[in-house]
Amino acid sequence: MNLPGLPHVLRAVAMTPGQTALLDHLRDRIGSKAIITERDAIAPWETDWRGRWHGHAPALLSPGSTQEVAAIVAAARAAGVALVPQGGNTSMVGGATPPEDGSALILSLRRLNRVRGIDTHANLAIAEAGVILETLHQAVAAEGRRFPLTLGSRGSATIGGLVSTNAGGTQVLRWGTMRGLVAGIEAVLPDGSVHDGLAVLKKDNRGYDLTQLLIGAEGTLGIVTAAALRLAPAITARAVGWAGCANPVDALALLRRMQAATDRIESFEIIRGDSLRRVLDHVPGTRSPLAGQHAWHVLIEAVASDPEPVPGAESPAGLLERLLAPALADGLIADAVVAASEAQAEAFWRLRESLSEAERAGGPALQFDISVPVEAMPRFMLDAAAAAEARFPGTHATAFGHLGDGNVHFHVRAPTSAAADRWYADEAPAITRFVDDLVVAAGGSISAEHGIGQMKLAELERLGPPARLHALRAIKAALDPAGLLNPGKLVRLAREPAGK
Amino acid sequence: MNLPGLPHVLRAVAMTPGQTALLDHLRDRIGSKAIITERDAIAPWETDWRGRWHGHAPALLSPGSTQEVAAIVAAARAAGVALVPQGGNTSMVGGATPPEDGSALILSLRRLNRVRGIDTHANLAIAEAGVILETLHQAVAAEGRRFPLTLGSRGSATIGGLVSTNAGGTQVLRWGTMRGLVAGIEAVLPDGSVHDGLAVLKKDNRGYDLTQLLIGAEGTLGIVTAAALRLAPAITARAVGWAGCANPVDALALLRRMQAATDRIESFEIIRGDSLRRVLDHVPGTRSPLAGQHAWHVLIEAVASDPEPVPGAESPAGLLERLLAPALADGLIADAVVAASEAQAEAFWRLRESLSEAERAGGPALQFDISVPVEAMPRFMLDAAAAAEARFPGTHATAFGHLGDGNVHFHVRAPTSAAADRWYADEAPAITRFVDDLVVAAGGSISAEHGIGQMKLAELERLGPPARLHALRAIKAALDPAGLLNPGKLVRLAREPAGK
Repeated sequence: MNLPGLPHVLRAVAMTPGQTALLDHLRDRIGSKAIITERDAIAPWETDWRGRWHGHAPALLSPGSTQEVAAIVAAARAAGVALVPQGGNTSMVGGATPPEDGSALILSLRRLNRVRGIDTHANLAIAEAGVILETLHQAVAAEGRRFPLTLGSRGSATIGGLVSTNAGGTQVLRWGTMRGLVAGIEAVLPDGSVHDGLAVLKKDNRGYDLTQLLIGAEGTLGIVTAAALRLAPAITARAVGWAGCANPVDALALLRRMQAATDRIESFEIIRGDSLRRVLDHVPGTRSPLAGQHAWHVLIEAVASDPEPVPGAESPAGLLERLLAPALADGLIADAVVAASEAQAEAFWRLRESLSEAERAGGPALQFDISVPVEAMPRFMLDAAAAAEARFPGTHATAFGHLGDGNVHFHVRAPTSAAADRWYADEAPAITRFVDDLVVAAGGSISAEHGIGQMKLAELERLGPPARLHALRAIKAALDPAGLLNPGKLVRLAREPAGK
Repeated sequence: MNLPGLPHVLRAVAMTPGQTALLDHLRDRIGSKAIITERDAIAPWETDWRGRWHGHAPALLSPGSTQEVAAIVAAARAAGVALVPQGGNTSMVGGATPPEDGSALILSLRRLNRVRGIDTHANLAIAEAGVILETLHQAVAAEGRRFPLTLGSRGSATIGGLVSTNAGGTQVLRWGTMRGLVAGIEAVLPDGSVHDGLAVLKKDNRGYDLTQLLIGAEGTLGIVTAAALRLAPAITARAVGWAGCANPVDALALLRRMQAATDRIESFEIIRGDSLRRVLDHVPGTRSPLAGQHAWHVLIEAVASDPEPVPGAESPAGLLERLLAPALADGLIADAVVAASEAQAEAFWRLRESLSEAERAGGPALQFDISVPVEAMPRFMLDAAAAAEARFPGTHATAFGHLGDGNVHFHVRAPTSAAADRWYADEAPAITRFVDDLVVAAGGSISAEHGIGQMKLAELERLGPPARLHALRAIKAALDPAGLLNPGKLVRLAREPAGK
């Protein structure tokens, strides 16, 4: 692992004879322009966006069609050359960074960037792997639809990467992760054949579901080249509320009440009082939605999306007010407000979306993307933070995020006296194991949204039930016996080195 | 294949030495009462419910816990004895019938019949594999919830079988198949280890999704022992409408209009006029919902499920009337009625649910459970029926069912002059290939709901893309290298005989 702050050395990478032969072969198939070997052009893609993972690739391949991807994969298999698929390079776990030894080429999907079609009857869009999420949002909005998944990196993240990591975000509460939004995929399998699963069938029971197997497989079982994606009606009205409460237990109780009364709650995010104060201090022009101080805050979004007016229908703001009033009256929450304008609604969301940045400004920190069963999350947020602070004196632990998904971002910040480099090097491994052990003890997942990539591979192997790890390796070995697709990510075959 | 009408010979089945040793070993582990070797007690489970598939098993194992299932699978693997998992024995494709040669034992999951818990906050139920669907319906109804999947065999079909076949039914339009309703499973893997995926995590990206892989795997990759199932609020009101129209194209246009206006349409079923007349002739006490004759009919159900009254909310009946009126006015449909009472609503549904029975009474017929992309289904229903009748003179082809899912039951009835046995033996293979070819040409699936089992294995192998079949076989060989779980179903390993 390359720790934050360590310099990346830009160096020439010698090509193996197999790689040279592969590129010679491919020049006729995909054209010279699609084969990039200039160091300066490759370098930005050898490092992840946060600068934590560095690799080396002697070439970057940039095919323009599914057929060209298939030709590359088939030829790479014949030549025994590994490929690292890459979309927007926004992985949080080093999932798209090539190995350090230059043994793999980068396979960029960014030129596969067409929205092939939008079917407003079936409410489906077919987008190629390189389509950027925000581009898709705009394309379907022009047709009165929306693709109900969004996240901070929407301006860079691509459909292929979102499928391959089973991405989540802030609308999972109502719409689920990518797994629930993908109706079919087209992918190149490790033998170079094309799996065409784009003809969307709502019912299809012809054996093991390859589409589901490839979702979240991080490019280790095939290269996703396009996806059929479920669309929802465009939002016609929304309301964003903000409430203060005593603890996460009450926050979840509020969510459960609301969900029992309506299916129109789209987001439900929890924020600790001191984290909010950090945002207010750090981000100019922000102010708290509520006058008083509260130990915990929740942001709630309700939407309406009826394309035709429904007689007598309640507005989202009316809905939130109706549901928040009794919670205020019986003390479940201490205060609440519903944004009076779209500008105010955006200001509420900005507070939430500034949390990571504000936390980062607070000093070196380890950020864990973890999940536990939803009902267990309130206690976990309280107990795990207290346990981490007790075990590692001087640290500051906090959690915020998608309470209704049982998924929070759990941060452990270094003591104010700590030097960043030393703290990351000396303390991070022990803190990581400590937090991951707490997660496993609570029946949770050490990777809720971000995947395993390189970063969490050792912990997955340490903590994964042996039967599950055995099954993962058996499937990988069966479909990609030479281990040529995204080597060193997610699952290691027996003959790969056990650690770096 | 055993064709309908051929007698099943009840015969003693000799036990192999491996089977004898296995039973001796298991007697200590699961108790003698859980090992059934009496011929009379086994016989009912050696034949599928329609009497089309007959096998032989020298013993039936009936474990009472997940641990006992694990002990059986581990011991069977050590002894090299195959197991055929069985729930309610309601397979339509011979998926739970043991091989004819007595080489496998039946592993009945029916004693795993506890509903382990119902969580009304998280809206989840955990049910063991042997829980009958109707029992689950009743258990969650008592908590003000419903499990939104139902089908004709709900009084027999079990959760394990429903998961393992990714079952569908009449509520898929809104709720999806089992794949969308399963939040997690517990299963015994082929090596006897237990995959515990019941701690429901809404976000969990730790590699290939074993739960999704086991859904629809027909017991060939593991034995499902329990599932966490998503619940929906109980229905507080429903309305059932009936409309007559000129053709399936107009029917789908009606559905699309309705779906654009509301998300409360729960079912949308299509019935051809002559099929309806057959029901009216065949089933005593039935009458047509509409006065006139129509070429095609649709049944539409809308529901409300708000546990608390919503101010000004429209009733399902009001919704249907509001949406049907403009379709009547502009001629998209010729006539329509909304059931005036729950009794009338049930009478409408009874017409739909009597279709298979009435069609069967019309003489020998081949029934295909097929799907194509929804938008292609109206033309497919018309064109495929005409093509089949033209190619096989004297036959009568019709289609009915889940139009909004792109899934219909396509029936080809024998000429009235045909003798059943001869027709099944002489004509069925050619008709099957003809219909399946049409389905594949339309981008569809030769098995929408029922799975592959034994019945569709040869056609899957004939029609499946080689890359897909290769991947299926590789996964099977990786996880169950000895081919001991439900042999001869869904996927054949290379060394298994190519046909029977």
